[in-house]
Amino acid sequence: MSSIIDVILREKLDQAIRLLEREGIDLWMTLVRESSTVHDPALDLICGMNLTWPSALLLSRGGEKAAIIGTLEVDALSGRGLYDQVVGYDLSLREPLLEALDRLQPRTIAINYSEDNVMADGLPHGLFLVLQRHLSGTPYADRLVSSDRLVSSLRGIKSSTEIGCIRKAIGSTLEIFEAFGRSIQPGLTERQAAEFFHRELHTRGLEPAWDLDHCPSVTAGPDSPFGHVGPQDYAVQRGQTIGVDFGVKQDGYCADLQRLWYVADEGEDHPPADVIRAFDAVRGSIEAAFRLVKPGQVGHVVDTAAREHLKKCGFEEYPHALGHQVGRSVHDGAALLGPRWERYGDTTSRPLEAGSVFTIELEVRIRQGLVSLEEDVLVTETGCEYLSEPQTEIRVVR
Amino acid sequence: MSSIIDVILREKLDQAIRLLEREGIDLWMTLVRESSTVHDPALDLICGMNLTWPSALLLSRGGEKAAIIGTLEVDALSGRGLYDQVVGYDLSLREPLLEALDRLQPRTIAINYSEDNVMADGLPHGLFLVLQRHLSGTPYADRLVSSDRLVSSLRGIKSSTEIGCIRKAIGSTLEIFEAFGRSIQPGLTERQAAEFFHRELHTRGLEPAWDLDHCPSVTAGPDSPFGHVGPQDYAVQRGQTIGVDFGVKQDGYCADLQRLWYVADEGEDHPPADVIRAFDAVRGSIEAAFRLVKPGQVGHVVDTAAREHLKKCGFEEYPHALGHQVGRSVHDGAALLGPRWERYGDTTSRPLEAGSVFTIELEVRIRQGLVSLEEDVLVTETGCEYLSEPQTEIRVVR
Repeated sequence: MSSIIDVILREKLDQAIRLLEREGIDLWMTLVRESSTVHDPALDLICGMNLTWPSALLLSRGGEKAAIIGTLEVDALSGRGLYDQVVGYDLSLREPLLEALDRLQPRTIAINYSEDNVMADGLPHGLFLVLQRHLSGTPYADRLVSSDRLVSSLRGIKSSTEIGCIRKAIGSTLEIFEAFGRSIQPGLTERQAAEFFHRELHTRGLEPAWDLDHCPSVTAGPDSPFGHVGPQDYAVQRGQTIGVDFGVKQDGYCADLQRLWYVADEGEDHPPADVIRAFDAVRGSIEAAFRLVKPGQVGHVVDTAAREHLKKCGFEEYPHALGHQVGRSVHDGAALLGPRWERYGDTTSRPLEAGSVFTIELEVRIRQGLVSLEEDVLVTETGCEYLSEPQTEIRVVR
Repeated sequence: MSSIIDVILREKLDQAIRLLEREGIDLWMTLVRESSTVHDPALDLICGMNLTWPSALLLSRGGEKAAIIGTLEVDALSGRGLYDQVVGYDLSLREPLLEALDRLQPRTIAINYSEDNVMADGLPHGLFLVLQRHLSGTPYADRLVSSDRLVSSLRGIKSSTEIGCIRKAIGSTLEIFEAFGRSIQPGLTERQAAEFFHRELHTRGLEPAWDLDHCPSVTAGPDSPFGHVGPQDYAVQRGQTIGVDFGVKQDGYCADLQRLWYVADEGEDHPPADVIRAFDAVRGSIEAAFRLVKPGQVGHVVDTAAREHLKKCGFEEYPHALGHQVGRSVHDGAALLGPRWERYGDTTSRPLEAGSVFTIELEVRIRQGLVSLEEDVLVTETGCEYLSEPQTEIRVVR
């Protein structure tokens, strides 16, 4: 475990206690078991290790940090120095948990469930029923509330240490894109391209930001299927585009970017007009969105601006959200830059917060292939800034 | 993705449909979203890829296999050929889901929650609330039941292909243990030992069966803390034991074993009597348990037999369960060989099933260090058999 992760865990624990005050919640309880199998994403922010037996991590508005866990894991968690109190048990979580609640007397207890935000929905339904059983007959049974807003801000609002990690991940990702660009030749298949990225990950000792089987996602020419599908045997030909969606995870933090190349025809000096027109429409949509990102803004307004620009340029809308947050997970935080479709719940109406990192990504399809871009931006106090140096013109492979 | 995994996915889908018949359940619905972040372990048995948008995998007693997923993932899932019907949607899961239910008319719909079995508790509480909302006002709202027994048997009862994978993982694990045994010298630290195992994983292109930071778990001499703590700077000295808990994941399946060595004093030919006495007590407890494992047996009876033997030999009881299932996950299935402690729910009273694989593991502490063993056994029609060649005597490093 790198020490930067321990620094961040301490920052996040302190931030969580400030957020309890902001939200007017007395206690935040993260309840988990066998977290290596069914993993509550909140653990990555406040614990940094998996817990096997039913375990409760308690953070109080008054600043108390207590963990109640199986005895066999007490040494491991105590050793990290994150919690003031680490209580071990052998038989049942119930008694030490009720003792802690009786000591803290919380009027509200936030637990990790949310209809809209998957990052705050780490409590399995069965374990929720166990908790209800443990609390039944106590005054605490009626004091459960959702930790959604707390967890969303805790994940979303990055510390400067976290932003430093994301910058590093973006830097490495862009370096790998540069190297890849130099290796493109007509006839290169998607699978060969993916192997290039996997070798780079291996050489640099980095993890992929998402599942290796579609990280990178490579789209060569017009026949390649679009979406979360792994690289196939399609080969990029002269007169076609090749686009790559890729990111590394470095020191526990993710990057997520797309870069685009055009493989020139024999004797062609620059891409044909329709490729440039498509590129400019995509690039312009990203700029239209970029100009609207700021604290307090809501995601569907940003998404609409990009869609409107794209339609004005004569292209079809993209069938997905414009951008998601990036952090510990490649789909991080809650607020989303996306349309008001039911599948996104209320996440496209949540105000953006300074310190959050978003992707802005979209694509159009033309006869030469997919034309797509993705940048990563940081929400600042007054607007936003690019964390990735944006791709402002199409790269030509000759 | 190796093709053996696709073979196994087909086997598990067919097995699931047989289990629906056994359990008298009309429909099994696995409901997930962003499964790379909050992962329902059932997905590993019936899908083999992660799903991003709210998605429903439906298996009916009549044999229908249908998936309703975000459009961007339709190509990827269709390409695997696992589901008869793969329906994509952009806006909301609700309408295509209700259409499917209206077509299938299930009287019971099993969903993945369980108070006792974490492997069947993959549905987050917030997503459960979303489902209730989607179903409200329809006849299906009152037809939800737990998939616990179905999922437990589906994970627990391995096909011969799965058992072959586990045998391979055990074989590789034992080879690595052999190589490690030859490298032990007085003064070897736990961290150095762990590095040896990590190098072997890397060289062989294998994954660890659990989190790398305590896979292996190494216990050198009497001062090393016990439990799920990563390797420390303790060095094994002459006259002390060194024990290692380790397993590889190979073709998606896990092994989980412990092996023990004694580093002899200068001029010592064999371990002192108290080390042998402790080893024999641990080994005898495993045998006492082994003799009782058979279909229909319950885990707490097996666990008690091991405890009784250990106490008869004059040692203290171990503070954990005697054995857990092994498979896709290192803690697999539901039925557990363990005491009737509340933290284990009803899992120590569930009948064992033929085709399940269990660890049998325990330890005692003596002044020379930890004395521990762990074997993996397969429940057969009539009893059980060792999948790992058991360690029957303490290995001496001279």
